[in-house]
Formats: sequence, structure tokens, C-alpha cells
Amino acid sequence: MSGIHLPSEIEVVNVGLSLFADEVREQGRPVIQVDWRIPAEGDPKLVAALGRLYGRHSPAIDEANAEVARRLDKGSPKLVEIEPAAKVVPGVDDRTILHSGPAIVWEEMCDPLRRSVRAAVMAEGWAGTPDAVDDLVAHGDVRLEPANHHAAVVPMASAIGPTAPMLVVDNEAGNTRAFSSINQGPGEVAWFGRETPAAVERLVFLREVAGPLFADCLREADTIDVFTLASQGLQMGDEMHMRTQATTNLLIRSLLPQLMSLDNSRSVELGRFLASNHLFYLNLAMAGAKSLTLWAEQVEGSSVVTTMSRNGTTYGLRLPGNDKWFITDSPPVGKAIYYAGYGPEDGAPDIGDSAVLELCGLGGSAAAASPAVATFVGGTMRDAIALTEDMYRVCVARSSRFKLPALDFRGTPIGVDVRKVVELGIAPKVNTGILHARDGTGQVGAGVAEAPIACFRDALLDLDRRLTG
Amino acid sequence: MSGIHLPSEIEVVNVGLSLFADEVREQGRPVIQVDWRIPAEGDPKLVAALGRLYGRHSPAIDEANAEVARRLDKGSPKLVEIEPAAKVVPGVDDRTILHSGPAIVWEEMCDPLRRSVRAAVMAEGWAGTPDAVDDLVAHGDVRLEPANHHAAVVPMASAIGPTAPMLVVDNEAGNTRAFSSINQGPGEVAWFGRETPAAVERLVFLREVAGPLFADCLREADTIDVFTLASQGLQMGDEMHMRTQATTNLLIRSLLPQLMSLDNSRSVELGRFLASNHLFYLNLAMAGAKSLTLWAEQVEGSSVVTTMSRNGTTYGLRLPGNDKWFITDSPPVGKAIYYAGYGPEDGAPDIGDSAVLELCGLGGSAAAASPAVATFVGGTMRDAIALTEDMYRVCVARSSRFKLPALDFRGTPIGVDVRKVVELGIAPKVNTGILHARDGTGQVGAGVAEAPIACFRDALLDLDRRLTG
Repeated sequence: MSGIHLPSEIEVVNVGLSLFADEVREQGRPVIQVDWRIPAEGDPKLVAALGRLYGRHSPAIDEANAEVARRLDKGSPKLVEIEPAAKVVPGVDDRTILHSGPAIVWEEMCDPLRRSVRAAVMAEGWAGTPDAVDDLVAHGDVRLEPANHHAAVVPMASAIGPTAPMLVVDNEAGNTRAFSSINQGPGEVAWFGRETPAAVERLVFLREVAGPLFADCLREADTIDVFTLASQGLQMGDEMHMRTQATTNLLIRSLLPQLMSLDNSRSVELGRFLASNHLFYLNLAMAGAKSLTLWAEQVEGSSVVTTMSRNGTTYGLRLPGNDKWFITDSPPVGKAIYYAGYGPEDGAPDIGDSAVLELCGLGGSAAAASPAVATFVGGTMRDAIALTEDMYRVCVARSSRFKLPALDFRGTPIGVDVRKVVELGIAPKVNTGILHARDGTGQVGAGVAEAPIACFRDALLDLDRRLTG
Repeated sequence: MSGIHLPSEIEVVNVGLSLFADEVREQGRPVIQVDWRIPAEGDPKLVAALGRLYGRHSPAIDEANAEVARRLDKGSPKLVEIEPAAKVVPGVDDRTILHSGPAIVWEEMCDPLRRSVRAAVMAEGWAGTPDAVDDLVAHGDVRLEPANHHAAVVPMASAIGPTAPMLVVDNEAGNTRAFSSINQGPGEVAWFGRETPAAVERLVFLREVAGPLFADCLREADTIDVFTLASQGLQMGDEMHMRTQATTNLLIRSLLPQLMSLDNSRSVELGRFLASNHLFYLNLAMAGAKSLTLWAEQVEGSSVVTTMSRNGTTYGLRLPGNDKWFITDSPPVGKAIYYAGYGPEDGAPDIGDSAVLELCGLGGSAAAASPAVATFVGGTMRDAIALTEDMYRVCVARSSRFKLPALDFRGTPIGVDVRKVVELGIAPKVNTGILHARDGTGQVGAGVAEAPIACFRDALLDLDRRLTG
């Protein structure tokens, strides 16, 4: 833990519960409150593991963590093309549907994810109705696969069929390639857990119009450096998870000559779609982040999380050098604002692969960059800054490219260390949308989800076992 | 002046020079420093006038100021069309060149403005070379008019001929209409004081391509609410004078369907122009601000400035209810960053009509909104906030639409009161570019210009004479 510099006139330092400090303050004497809790809530197994992981294993872990952080910080993802999933994503065959979160069987999928799978299957033309999809799935005719097992990440309740156009992002520094779908935009859409004809139609539009035409633009344009745009967006109020408006707009203006050169009867539809979709950049940022975690996870013996993902039923982590998932129940989104007429009882548990952003210095880590996000987390920039401050406490490094104006242009926190999360009991904060849990309404709110500590503890104990032998 | 709330443990309050306070601080005793100077530097005439304007005239002035501030705050400028200057701008005939700043004869124009006039005349086809323009002007064949006398505002060294396409902005609330040119973009351009073939070509491009095609888009689009977009841009790092990147991008994304619908062989040129011009919104914001000051200046007996403008030679102010200009020399741009190889000796004095933004809660008033501007004024957000804080001290109200995230979403200061400027000796801060003073290089830097106090003093004395009779 880092040192605390006390002003010289302080007479009382209080550590732990603030009741005592409050009493001293009432007596008019200067006091400083240090937030301290019993490490790992005093669990003997965890405390012993922490002892080893901060003790004799520490030099090796710190070295590995520094390399993981370097890769998360120095990878340089570029958008290189847009192609159908089956053509470019490894291991995707003509019956594969990729979904967000850890692996999960159909019966255990949450309602919005199931609806999204149905929309994807209907968009592929394998079935004409939701019931027919259910029959197909029951007969084992659909292969459900976590996107994360195929170098891909998809937001919220996205489910992606083999003909879906995928953003292809290369991180040359690490020779890694990652994928994401094209963001489906607002309204009646499958990634919000809808299976209506309009939601299916949007997927068909992405395949038939948006994907191919945007790919045409890319072929005519300079390579798009995903995180150079994102770092500019961070100076313009995006934290790149809830809010990607500025970065989306930077991308669109930079591609304006190519967009305006399109010679296609449907190009105006693409114009309308882009004009209405301020989250267009979200998926690109996610693919960029994934290309970095794919590089970082090749490091052995690190305690820094390289996969963090949810499917609305379970929440999963992975550590570098290890394929093992640490899984627990996906929690509700705690700090949330609901649309009028909806409340916590309507919200599905936390869902989506987008938490990959929080591992790379974006999203909750960059909350302090975003006035718009501030309104979701308390109303002032101080509330947004507090989110980021919590992330600093559990991270091992600072981004050299994502800078926070509100914190004197300090780099955002990167590299979530399971040791710190378990020791301090501080969960990573993930900015996210909230979907209706049952009735296919779609998005009903947005907020900040806390990752469940349980899977960090499991990951920590496993790391300890692997290192201690 | 507003009350100061002192913490109870303060033992010494120091008013005025900080030397004494520094000494007390060194002795380790709590001290608070209050920045106070002798009002109006003790000038007896000014002090007497201030006495009357803050005294018996105060209720009437405060009432007028409140109405001026209401108009600056509540006007709702809309971009309605783009048409050639001679067609829409009142009083522009086929030999008129509109220029920035107060009225000025050719011989006294600064070098960059003269070059810009030459480029405008050549773009009109009245002369083929800079020398031929000089002959025309010498023979009285060009009518040089301040844009401000024609309900128009133009940035930096802009000079606008009768065929130049003008943004037409209506403030329905006040039944006022204002105009600005289309921003000429970066590089070898007349508004930066260049007269080269490329600079002339850009003006022709605006007339032949950008103006008509953008006008086509407007006809197909919803009306553009100038300050609704600007208020969003303020949450995205624009202060709307040095930096209009976010707002430009918002505008472009909202017009994307119309831009992509253009059926014209030259539309891609428009695309390239817009992709390269992050200051496109500057002129639109200026026209919006001018439409408000035109409404506000109809109020009688106010001490709030409604014209503030410079031509690189002189600096001028006007107060409401009065056509009289208060003129002094245009100062150099004080706090500045120069491009490599240039310094203060190369910079022309402050120039352009863009200071109209600072009267309406934008530019220097909104510096605290902009991380990019912070880098020009000291490097941290605190430096940018200090600029805005200075503007609060000389303004009468706060904007209800332009909010500052860094100051808990407080509205930006609006309504610069000559009484406060003269009393406190605090000049309005204007964010601006810097042009080469002599050789036609174009822009050589950017910085913050302080308005010269002299013209505020003259305006104050004139207001006192008018009210005291």
C-alpha cells in the first residue's frame, strides 16, 4: 500500500470505522480518517494466500504484472477490415452463434440473451419464428459459443451469427487479432434483448448494408487507429463504455470523404443509421481492448485480470497464462438510473463482454473523463472521479494514452490486480446498460455494476495454488 | 461585491497586496488573502462616475442589465439558410467588402487584414493580382465596411465579398437576424491573412461548392438550433472559440443523411473540406451570438457590453441603446503559445469579431469547459478555470444553457458589465488565434487576449454622461 502523507498539524489518525473519527471531530480536534478494512474480510485461507502472493511470490508477480500492464498500455489496435464472422473469426462454423459472457447452456441463459439468440438465428434464416428457434436449439442444431472463446467480444445481450459482419482489429505490436460485431444502435434491437421483426431487420440491415458499405469506406481510407481516436474522445467527455459519442463523431468526420463517395442506392440508409447511433464506437473500442488482453494473457504468473465478462446469468474472470474461468452469479447493476416506469425489480443481472474496457483504462476506469456519466453516478464530477479513484486502488499502472483532464491529465488506471481487489474488498466498477429481465422490453436503464468479489477470490486462490505448487 | 464567507479559524485577513499575507503565512498563522485593488486605479473621474453608476443610477442600470442578460441567455438562434452576402445581408452592394473589427480605412488596416481584403477582391474577380487590388482600393472602387455594421460577424482577418456565401441565423424570440461567413478552414487561407492563389481558390470553393451544397443539405434537414448543439459541445470539451471540434462533429453527424444524399460531382470535395475543418462551427456560433447581441442592444440604459470587436489595428466596444463605438488600440495577444520559429515579435495585434462569443458565455467565459484550451493557458484545468472565474467577476449573470462540468455544472458567465471591468481592472479574456504581423505567413500561434481597459473606461464615462445628463 502506498504511503500517506499527513499534514503536520493532524493530532489524531483514525483507521477503520469512522465512528471514532466523528467523535473526535465533534470535539473540535483535527483528525484524518483512513479507510481501512480487515484484508479479505479476515478469511484465513485468503489472508494466507495474500501473504504468499504479496510475500515470496511478489517479485515474480510484480514483474509479470508490469509486462501485462505494458501490453495493455502499448498495444496499438487498428481496424483493418469488416468481414462476415464465419469468414474471419476462428472456429466459427455455419451453425455457430457467438454470445456475450462465459459459456452457458440455453436453459440457463437469461431472458434477454435468449431473445437475442433467437433474433440472430432468424436473421440467419435458420428459423422463421421464435418458437421455431427454440425447437432448433432443443434439437442441438445451433452451436452456442462464448465470443470470448473466439477472440471476440460483444456488448450487452449480443448474439452473432456466422453471416454477421465483424470488425477485425489487429494489434501489430503483439501479433494479436480481435473481433467485435457492429453496434446495432438504439431502439428495438437484439443486443438489448429483443426478438421482434424490427430487431431481426436491423441485423439483416447490418449484414446487407452497413457492414459492406462501411467496409468499402475502410478500403478507401487510412487505417483507423482505434485508441488514438479513443484518447481524443476521452478529452471530449467519453469514458468509452456508457458514452462514445465524441469518438463516434471523430470517426465519422474522418471518414466523411469516403462515406460521401459511396455510390450505392442504400448509402443514405447507412447515413441515417450512423446519424442515430452515438454508440457506434463502443464495439470498436471493445475489439481494440480485446486485442490487447489477447496479448497480455500470454504472460505467465500475473495477478492482473485479462478476461472479465458476463452473460446475465454468470460472471466470469480469467487470469493470464491460464484458460480457466472463475465463475459466479452475475449481480444486479447496483448504482443505476432507470427509465420512467422501471425499477430494480425489472433489471436483468449484469450482462455483456464490454467489461473488457475496464481492464484497459476505459469505462469505469475513465469515469472521471465524462460529464455525461457523472449524471448517472451522483450528479457531479466528484462522483465520477470517485469511481475512477476506486479503480486506481485496485490497478497496477496508469495509461500513457488515456488522460483525465479532471485529474491534471493523469493516465487512467490499467491492470486490475486480483490481489488488491481481494485485499481491499474493492470491486472493479463497470459502466453499463440495464436490460429488462423478463418481457423483452429492451433497455430499461443504465448504471454502474460492481464486479462480484467471489470470482476474484477464486482466481486468487487458484493463482496461489499454481505458484505455490 | 458578493460576501466572503470566512472559515472561523482564520485570524488574519489580508486585503490587497499579498506580500503582507506571505509574511504572516511564514509565521505559521492562518491567513486568507483577498484580492483587492483601488477601484478604477483611483482615477477621480472614473471613481465619481462609478459612484453614480453603482449609486443612484444603479436600480435602473441593474434592471436594464437583467433584461440584456435575459436576452443573451434566452435567445434561440437557428441556422435557416446559406445565401450570397449581397442577396441577404442588409446594405451590402456589389462593391462592398465586409471586414472584421471597427470601421477602418485601408491605409490603417493591419497587414493580415489587407491581404485578406485582396484575396476577397480577387475571388470576386474585380482584380487579378494583389497590386491591382491596391489600385482599385486607391481609386475608391471598393467599399470597405465593418461586418458589425451589417448585422454580421467574421472571425480573425476575414474579409467577405458580395458573392460570398453567408450563414443566415434567426433569433425568433427577438426577431433578429445575424450573419457570418463559412469558416475557411486551416492552411493557406484568407482569414489567416493570406492572399495567395490557394487562399483565393478556397474562397471560390466556398462560393461554388461548399456554400451551395451545404445549403442543399440544410433544405432537407431539420432546422439547426445553434446553441442546443453548442451546449452539448460544452460538455465535450469545446469552449466554442479556440475549440469547436465536438460541436462541428455533432453538426456533421446530424447532417450525415443529407450529406450522403447529395447528388453532385463535387460533393466529395465538400466531404474533404468538412473532414479537415474542426473550426467549421466557429462562424455558426458567432452568428448565433450576434443574433442575441442584436436583440440585447435594443435595451436602453444598460452597462453590459453588446459589441466587442477588433480589426488588428483598433479594438472597439459598444453599449446597448447607442451606436457609438469606444475605440482604442488593439493589444497584442498576451498569454500565447507560438508555433515553432515564431514569437511575440511576429504576432499581429488582436483581430476578429469572434469576441462576440465572450459576451454570450462562450470562449474565454467557457474556458473551464475545455481541456484543449487548458493546454494554452497554463497546462491544467485549474488554469482554464481561473480564466472563467475572472469572467464571473465582471459579468452580471449565468447562462442557463452553457454548463461547466468542472464547476459542478454551473452556468457560464454572461453579460460583461463595464462598471465591474473598470472598478476591478479585470479585462474580459478572449481566446483567439494569432496571425503574422507582416509577411503573410498566416497563423503563427494562439492564446488569450485581454481586452484593453481603456475602451471600457470611455464607455463607462459616456454611459455616466448619458444617464446623468
